[in-house]
Amino acid sequence: MNAVSPVSVTFADVQAAAGRIKGLAVETPLVESPALNERLGGRVLLKLETQQRVGAFKFRGAYNRLVQLDADQRKAGVVAFSSGNHAQGVALAAKLLGMPAIIVMPADAPALKVANTKGYGAEVRLYDRLTESREAIAAEIAATRGAVVVPAYDDPHIVAGQGTAGLEMLAQAKAVGAEFDAIVSPVGGGGLLSGISLVTKELSPKTELWGAEPSVYNDLAQSLASGERVTVKPTVRTLCDALESPSTGDITFPILKRNLAGAVGLTDPEVAEAMRYAFLTLKLVMEPGGSVGLAALLTGKVDARGKTVGVVVSGANVDPELFARILKGEV
Amino acid sequence: MNAVSPVSVTFADVQAAAGRIKGLAVETPLVESPALNERLGGRVLLKLETQQRVGAFKFRGAYNRLVQLDADQRKAGVVAFSSGNHAQGVALAAKLLGMPAIIVMPADAPALKVANTKGYGAEVRLYDRLTESREAIAAEIAATRGAVVVPAYDDPHIVAGQGTAGLEMLAQAKAVGAEFDAIVSPVGGGGLLSGISLVTKELSPKTELWGAEPSVYNDLAQSLASGERVTVKPTVRTLCDALESPSTGDITFPILKRNLAGAVGLTDPEVAEAMRYAFLTLKLVMEPGGSVGLAALLTGKVDARGKTVGVVVSGANVDPELFARILKGEV
Repeated sequence: MNAVSPVSVTFADVQAAAGRIKGLAVETPLVESPALNERLGGRVLLKLETQQRVGAFKFRGAYNRLVQLDADQRKAGVVAFSSGNHAQGVALAAKLLGMPAIIVMPADAPALKVANTKGYGAEVRLYDRLTESREAIAAEIAATRGAVVVPAYDDPHIVAGQGTAGLEMLAQAKAVGAEFDAIVSPVGGGGLLSGISLVTKELSPKTELWGAEPSVYNDLAQSLASGERVTVKPTVRTLCDALESPSTGDITFPILKRNLAGAVGLTDPEVAEAMRYAFLTLKLVMEPGGSVGLAALLTGKVDARGKTVGVVVSGANVDPELFARILKGEV
Repeated sequence: MNAVSPVSVTFADVQAAAGRIKGLAVETPLVESPALNERLGGRVLLKLETQQRVGAFKFRGAYNRLVQLDADQRKAGVVAFSSGNHAQGVALAAKLLGMPAIIVMPADAPALKVANTKGYGAEVRLYDRLTESREAIAAEIAATRGAVVVPAYDDPHIVAGQGTAGLEMLAQAKAVGAEFDAIVSPVGGGGLLSGISLVTKELSPKTELWGAEPSVYNDLAQSLASGERVTVKPTVRTLCDALESPSTGDITFPILKRNLAGAVGLTDPEVAEAMRYAFLTLKLVMEPGGSVGLAALLTGKVDARGKTVGVVVSGANVDPELFARILKGEV
């Protein structure tokens, strides 16, 4: 018997996704701050996925996945589990495509993310992180209603959709005369960064790719070091609710392993400091998980001196109460 | 004896200013939010001068003014008075051009604006709003040191410099297939909006221009209604420290009178609500005075239904303590 060939995603899949989301997803801006450049001694271009629909890149992949469902599947709808940004992406894509969506979210997800998900018309099923299995709940809903489960990252259409952010980044950089020596992106399950890497390796193969993750969820750094996918135990919480995936995926890890220069870990204080810098100097709202790429540069964990570096700011769905505490230096 | 002809500013002056600031000022992004469009029933494009150097549009005019000083003037330096954004614009332009700058600022100016102004290397002279005259202090410094006084708005080079934001807006709108039915901009002394109006009347004469000002500093609305420049008594404070000018200027008012469709007033609660909307939905930091154009749309005081409207977001230098209070609904 032949070995089952792994699911693959290609640059062409990202190009096809770009065609599907055109005019529906926002072509988010790539911005540059002279103050940040001066501080880091390099040229830094920030890709503001905070300006994407739902306030995070997740709409790209979700729409690319849902638009490819057939008429019967659309009728039965979709089910997804997510701490919040994928939830919102799936909820809005389902709304635009006129299909029902049920989202399984942890009861302690940011209130803003839960409220927005409901606001897009999705049904939300809250679960207890400690006593319930979100996979089991989603599987039961899928079985009962015939709904399609939409994974947050380990799906070729999701990866291809997220990769469209990379297509835009490279074109926008070219338009301002920049070529990336490196790109740094937040990484949880790896859908976004693996998608971007497919684009970068095709169009700008000399660009180094770095993942930024919470230091206590540094499964990617461990996995790259050992060459095998490592799963960390999700025993602690961090500020970065969006990046608390215990591991990358069956599809995303092989791509990341092939394409990344490395991964760096950020602590909560480093993340909070990056969020304050974004507010005070860049005048941008970032959620904790969205700011780890910037934090990687500000801490010097990824060196920008003398280089042109692209930073993906992946989302900005942060509760105002937490943001206020971070501004006041209480976090 | 012939009447003295008034100082005039032309479209050509704005074009010349654009050449002078090219590569030094940021070409700030023009962004669009599907959520905002849906809420307002129109197409809204936000010009983010929050992404300009110093976090506000003021660098444009300040640099255009200072770069035209001769060698002797540069040696003696400049003096300016400002609640904060002009202060920072002049301070940074002076730094880039290697000349000394003294800024006269009210003692109760936002701490962030004072700190940043000092951070750009300027000498700051604080004064008491109630007992001292900033004009007298600046005049004395000018006389003693031979420094050139750089007005915040009533100066042709300042107006021309600020107008470059309008040049960019129209070109950026064209690039995304948009033509403005209207543009709404914050207005204090009127330097920004008069400059934008020179551009708009030349390149897009059908575009209606609206000023947005604090309702208790509605000197422009009163002036447009009476046809004569009205000065309001600065007896109260508002959230909008940047827009508390008691009147427009000798140069700016005639331009505004000729070119504007009208002016609308915004209350502090309306401004705070716009700032919260910007944080929660647009993921953008705006200072109170920078958000009045958005507030004018959100309150329906300028109607966006079925229209394409440009909104200038003029600045984002807001103290974190105040921003936190606004997020928590305490303001």
